[in-house]
Amino acid sequence: MNFKNLLDRRSIRKYSGKPVEDELLNNILLKACRTSTTGNMQVYSIIVIKDIEKKKKLSPFHFNQKMITEAPVVLTFCADFNRFSKWCHQNNAKPGYDNFLSFFTAAIDALLVAQTLCIAAESEGLGICYLGTTTYMAHKIIETLKLPKGVVPVTTVTLGWPDEEPEQLDRLPLEAVVHKEVYHDYYTPDIERFYRGKEERSDSQQFVKENNKETLAQVFTDVRYKKEDNVYFSRMFLQVLKDQGFMEQ
Amino acid sequence: MNFKNLLDRRSIRKYSGKPVEDELLNNILLKACRTSTTGNMQVYSIIVIKDIEKKKKLSPFHFNQKMITEAPVVLTFCADFNRFSKWCHQNNAKPGYDNFLSFFTAAIDALLVAQTLCIAAESEGLGICYLGTTTYMAHKIIETLKLPKGVVPVTTVTLGWPDEEPEQLDRLPLEAVVHKEVYHDYYTPDIERFYRGKEERSDSQQFVKENNKETLAQVFTDVRYKKEDNVYFSRMFLQVLKDQGFMEQ
Repeated sequence: MNFKNLLDRRSIRKYSGKPVEDELLNNILLKACRTSTTGNMQVYSIIVIKDIEKKKKLSPFHFNQKMITEAPVVLTFCADFNRFSKWCHQNNAKPGYDNFLSFFTAAIDALLVAQTLCIAAESEGLGICYLGTTTYMAHKIIETLKLPKGVVPVTTVTLGWPDEEPEQLDRLPLEAVVHKEVYHDYYTPDIERFYRGKEERSDSQQFVKENNKETLAQVFTDVRYKKEDNVYFSRMFLQVLKDQGFMEQ
Repeated sequence: MNFKNLLDRRSIRKYSGKPVEDELLNNILLKACRTSTTGNMQVYSIIVIKDIEKKKKLSPFHFNQKMITEAPVVLTFCADFNRFSKWCHQNNAKPGYDNFLSFFTAAIDALLVAQTLCIAAESEGLGICYLGTTTYMAHKIIETLKLPKGVVPVTTVTLGWPDEEPEQLDRLPLEAVVHKEVYHDYYTPDIERFYRGKEERSDSQQFVKENNKETLAQVFTDVRYKKEDNVYFSRMFLQVLKDQGFMEQ
């Protein structure tokens, strides 16, 4: 795989039993850590989980998605101002990072590092899958991974050698997501045109049918990403930010 | 450049006058848009800015960092639930994405896409620099780029052909940021060991001297990333989330 294959990539949810060698994983982590971070502060941490017992403990907090226990490596990426603040305290400096901006700054660091890690891994033939569930049950992940104050998990990646060749998913046309000079808001016919391809796919039509819905959009709003869940998890995540010491402003 | 060079990369702040051709930029954008996103919703937008007048307008909101006006291309990455919610409304579905979790979900999408774009650009020999200032003055960027409700800028990247060969910055040792199985909190000697390399660099010592400080950590807490600024920008950014319709829970 080379950079050209960024166009051909797909997420991998099924992994072979072959382990990811330490040297390879180390090399990928080193590449990830060359990612730009705010003021070169590197306010992130990466938890590398290989122990099956630990994965089993994490599994329910990721809604038992099978990748958690089946992937040889699970990586949880955290916004982390704990380490940096400790360094400040030890050096007669008073850290002022117990606020929302600092959390978001550290989250940016962690997310950019995660994506470099994924690209570096895929370039070696490994497969990855992101688990968006990380922010839903952050308080449980914090407990399981013993994250101290100043540390919040923001995403999780499962990693291993692919044991499937899934079809590549659709994407919106580039003009749907790219704006020139300023944001050009969408008119009804734009939206129709941009989403038509997605709606017409046979798997989309299958989803609509299986879920007894009228439209594909309803599968998202009524089944997959429901308002009541979003509201509930929003409250939980804001509470996590408070508990981990990022809402002191 | 190939993937190996992820180890050799550095941010570029000085660009040659050579423009970035549309075909190349398009190719890089296509690669970026293959990035994994939550539920394949692609809840992000990318604003591509080339017009010098527009760059000049943005410049003060990025504290007049020269890259904004000097780079041939400026890209602002936004969390965007506006497009998706419009699609829902048009399809008899009720979007429930006016909450903090949805903002953060969309921010993750936007940030992962931004990092793929940077790696794709660097693989072509282009140089990039992230501007962390995006979240500080988000309300002004929203005004300038005409971002509607449901859209929040989360990071900005300047892009162009390098006209400098800066030294590679230091990074903490891998063991400082990577944890095995669970988070291992830091003891005083760990912190000393991990940050010694950074503290001993001649440029770090120069910073300390120039700023009339005792320690490098004080340069961060008292000059570069001050509590009072962080608290001020936290309030502003939370207000932006509210104004853009992401705090309805």
